[in-house]
Amino acid sequence: MNIKKGVVGKVYHCPIKGEFEFISNGLITIDQQGKICDVLHPSDPNYSKTLNFLKEKDSLQELTEQQFLLPGMVDLHIHAPQWPQAGKGLDLPLNEWLDHYTFPLEHKFSDLSFAEQYYPHLVKTYLANGTTTATYFATIDTSSSLYLAETCIKYGQRALVGKVSMDDKEMCPNYYVEESAEHSIQEAERFITSFSQLANNNNLVEPIITPRFIPTCSLEALKGLGDLAKKYQCAVQTHASESDWARDFSQEKYNKTDIEIYNEAGLLGERTILAHSIFLTDSDIDTIKQKGSGIAHCPRSNIYFANAALPLREYLDQDIQLGLGSDIAGGPFPSLFMACSDAVLHSRARECGTNASLPAEIRGQKNSRVSLLEAYWMATTGGGQLLKLPVGQFKKGYCFDALVIDDEDSNLLICPDLDSPQDILEKIITHTTRNNIRQVWVDGNQVK
Amino acid sequence: MNIKKGVVGKVYHCPIKGEFEFISNGLITIDQQGKICDVLHPSDPNYSKTLNFLKEKDSLQELTEQQFLLPGMVDLHIHAPQWPQAGKGLDLPLNEWLDHYTFPLEHKFSDLSFAEQYYPHLVKTYLANGTTTATYFATIDTSSSLYLAETCIKYGQRALVGKVSMDDKEMCPNYYVEESAEHSIQEAERFITSFSQLANNNNLVEPIITPRFIPTCSLEALKGLGDLAKKYQCAVQTHASESDWARDFSQEKYNKTDIEIYNEAGLLGERTILAHSIFLTDSDIDTIKQKGSGIAHCPRSNIYFANAALPLREYLDQDIQLGLGSDIAGGPFPSLFMACSDAVLHSRARECGTNASLPAEIRGQKNSRVSLLEAYWMATTGGGQLLKLPVGQFKKGYCFDALVIDDEDSNLLICPDLDSPQDILEKIITHTTRNNIRQVWVDGNQVK
Ligand SMILES: [Zn+2]
Ligand SMILES: [Zn+2]
Repeated sequence: MNIKKGVVGKVYHCPIKGEFEFISNGLITIDQQGKICDVLHPSDPNYSKTLNFLKEKDSLQELTEQQFLLPGMVDLHIHAPQWPQAGKGLDLPLNEWLDHYTFPLEHKFSDLSFAEQYYPHLVKTYLANGTTTATYFATIDTSSSLYLAETCIKYGQRALVGKVSMDDKEMCPNYYVEESAEHSIQEAERFITSFSQLANNNNLVEPIITPRFIPTCSLEALKGLGDLAKKYQCAVQTHASESDWARDFSQEKYNKTDIEIYNEAGLLGERTILAHSIFLTDSDIDTIKQKGSGIAHCPRSNIYFANAALPLREYLDQDIQLGLGSDIAGGPFPSLFMACSDAVLHSRARECGTNASLPAEIRGQKNSRVSLLEAYWMATTGGGQLLKLPVGQFKKGYCFDALVIDDEDSNLLICPDLDSPQDILEKIITHTTRNNIRQVWVDGNQVK
Repeated sequence: MNIKKGVVGKVYHCPIKGEFEFISNGLITIDQQGKICDVLHPSDPNYSKTLNFLKEKDSLQELTEQQFLLPGMVDLHIHAPQWPQAGKGLDLPLNEWLDHYTFPLEHKFSDLSFAEQYYPHLVKTYLANGTTTATYFATIDTSSSLYLAETCIKYGQRALVGKVSMDDKEMCPNYYVEESAEHSIQEAERFITSFSQLANNNNLVEPIITPRFIPTCSLEALKGLGDLAKKYQCAVQTHASESDWARDFSQEKYNKTDIEIYNEAGLLGERTILAHSIFLTDSDIDTIKQKGSGIAHCPRSNIYFANAALPLREYLDQDIQLGLGSDIAGGPFPSLFMACSDAVLHSRARECGTNASLPAEIRGQKNSRVSLLEAYWMATTGGGQLLKLPVGQFKKGYCFDALVIDDEDSNLLICPDLDSPQDILEKIITHTTRNNIRQVWVDGNQVK
């Protein structure tokens, strides 16, 4: 046996959209590389033998009655340099918010000593909140973006880290713009190739190509980044049709949708994360499905900045790849548990509509609601599938990225006499904050 | 001097709607009864003398550089017996949710040993989350509702506790209904008069008359409760126009609005809390203003159950009395800090609208947004004013109900070099959870 250790206890995960699996004495065995050897139910023939073997070599962690083992969260959209800004200034339209708050702050990260003040705090915060896989936008500065990748390695967080590409001199502030499309592409390539020199990486972090969004990028830069994605088989992340303003910008300047522009640049692949994607055409949706790209839904920031709700119900039903993003600092909370509740809320606001002076029949969009289990599936399994990473569920060969949660000294109240296994999972998803999360593993290493 | 002790440090509060006051070395002095003697700025002539006096008699608590003193939160709407249900089953329409989950659960609280399992946990949870004044709906059972009041006294929480009145046999389940209007009124009176026998009360808890909502109450019972409100000068709480269904019920059965019915029953006074109040007519609003009653806005539960957004912007601008409610278990979070963020979100969803297929111009209701400081004002000062209690701000003669908050080991990141005093307050409101709240005082007694 290649088994190094095991964990036994109450196990929850959601391999299938909208459903959950609960194993009351699940035994998960883990190998030297932190991968899952097996997920054993008490009824499995190997269960007792394996349990005894692990006990004998003192390699079994037995969870208590109050503890639950869940997969780590997979966050598809985080602006790392906006962390110091999280929770303030959320009253401006998107473009003004960027100009007044975000760009000046992001610019400061070219100073590495500034980055050192905030990136470690950010990575530790997300780990503490249960995010074992994080997808980061860093800044246009290559060195400090690499420093973010090193920080993830140091604290043991799985991450896709993107140096932001933005070269449009008209749309970007003069202090925060790359000098040309050519330079933008060169720096993106230098960023990607630098990952091979990162010490102790062990595949924990990888680069992700990150054109900010259409308004800040020249077509030449987008095309060059598309070529890099192909050359290096890199993941890609960007924003698509986030707001009326962003959608109209592409229509007015190019007479195209964001998705059409990204597609022509070669940026839509099987590992492309399109954040937001509120205003898609039917043809956009076909393109996304055909290319196997996915959408990062950011339910809270969308309400601040997107001007409308995502048609999430339809996208789930059409089997588009979907995951969740906390979207610091457009959303203020560094927690995908919160994002699960917010995704449900977002869908319910859409279903009911908001204008109390309209008749109920025309106020909202009927049958839009999304369940908490669907949202949680997006935050774990869905995110993993979108990234094509073996994370988000407990499955042979997958990474052991996991959380131990209990209800001690917290807002989580489990009532064994009143709560079904599904009730308990819903309560856990709703009420888990960092102080319920007792342990966090990434690749079998305990990082909290 | 009648001063017993003092606290000095960074003080925030919001006496004026939409504004904040920050005192960088504020000194608050407190008397034997836990009332505030004075709020001193360093520029006040008595400041140094008072500070030295307190230091000499070892009665001064000096907050650290990382700590902040804020008023305790005033929650206007909590269903105490629904606490075991918080976070589960949030996918049904209001009337089904009540029938399937809520009424059976509330009924169990007639068993005092059941109540003993959950009420102490609830009260401790709200205190831990910073709620120093709580307004509770209990159940129809008088004994266990009194036990809730005793529990508040035991743990030191200021509270208005309501025995729920509901006597309509057609609308209430047969196992959870009062036997007649007469009995309902008798029990309400017995509940009110029992408060004089509560040990160690010291005005910490008081009864509040609590007809559940129009559909569950006979007009006779409402009228009787209105008489009791007058006789005992009691506060009143109920639900008003929470959903299309609730509004239509009153129209169809009585051809009146909820507000008209409550008004005719004598239930609208200066200490009446109307939860939700989504679908009010202009005439309803005039009545509410004229009677000096107030609205408890429950931003998260409204999105689940109210079918539309509250016209909060207009109500704030019209100076209607307004506060916030967490609305356990319609809203799952026992925190008014969360409710502040949710109130902003709620107003933004209303402003933008949700239907992405409509043009932006007709999608939402322009200029609906509410600021975080306005929401926080509602959660503190506004709630105190609505209840006519001297709480929610730091002011001579007011109760010293206060929280010490710091950013250690939490999602709250204060950046002294980047954040203005307003930024810091906005971050505190956004990110405070129970593990940021180091101390809680009610009436000068430390209860956490
Ligand atoms: Zn973003
Ligand atoms: Zn209620």
